[in-house]
Amino acid sequence: MQIDDAEAKAEVEAAFARYEAALVGNDVPTLEALFHDDPRTIRYGGGENLYGMDAIRTFRRSRPSRGLDRELSDTVITTYGRDHAVAMTLFRRGNAPGKVGRQSQTWVRFPDGWKVVAAHVSVIDEP
Amino acid sequence: MQIDDAEAKAEVEAAFARYEAALVGNDVPTLEALFHDDPRTIRYGGGENLYGMDAIRTFRRSRPSRGLDRELSDTVITTYGRDHAVAMTLFRRGNAPGKVGRQSQTWVRFPDGWKVVAAHVSVIDEP
Repeated sequence: MQIDDAEAKAEVEAAFARYEAALVGNDVPTLEALFHDDPRTIRYGGGENLYGMDAIRTFRRSRPSRGLDRELSDTVITTYGRDHAVAMTLFRRGNAPGKVGRQSQTWVRFPDGWKVVAAHVSVIDEP
Repeated sequence: MQIDDAEAKAEVEAAFARYEAALVGNDVPTLEALFHDDPRTIRYGGGENLYGMDAIRTFRRSRPSRGLDRELSDTVITTYGRDHAVAMTLFRRGNAPGKVGRQSQTWVRFPDGWKVVAAHVSVIDEP
């Protein structure tokens, strides 16, 4: 199993960038399209634990659409084989000084493209 | 790509159980052995962001060894193909009423067994 195959990594980097743009722009259809539509998809959010795509969709559609700007740092995307990847990043928001967010995603390649199958977002005090 | 292949899933369930026992028992050598020994392995912890196995090892070895008991719930392990899996679980501790922990792990099968390549632990108020 090759780690960081160049082609796979470039694909996931593109999907990750597309997700980030959709998140900051509150483009809900794109956010939903980049998650695997399955009851086994899980997202632990800043203040909620969402089991299954139905719960994730309900949350997305009621999400506030303001104050979403954020700055990423320490982003690491690593692919394991051709069809699996992990994307880890820190983020900070101007309206939350002294805090650092962490976002982790597991991506899998399906016939219709790369999708997030598991995600976890949390915010802590700056270590 | 088969999701939840029975044999792969049983293997990851066994590795997950071994990790949980090591965590509660503060068995640091086993905890370290179940993470992929690589600079690309990342662990976002309750209050720290650890990039690379060296940082993870340093943290583990200075970790308090008391008050580690916890109760798991809503544990979901899903395998994607033969060599990749996600393990998601909630946890609660008797010394932290009103709080729920979330632990997510991405597991990959290497020649020497299943290893965590990415982990994220956070604690929030009960939703």
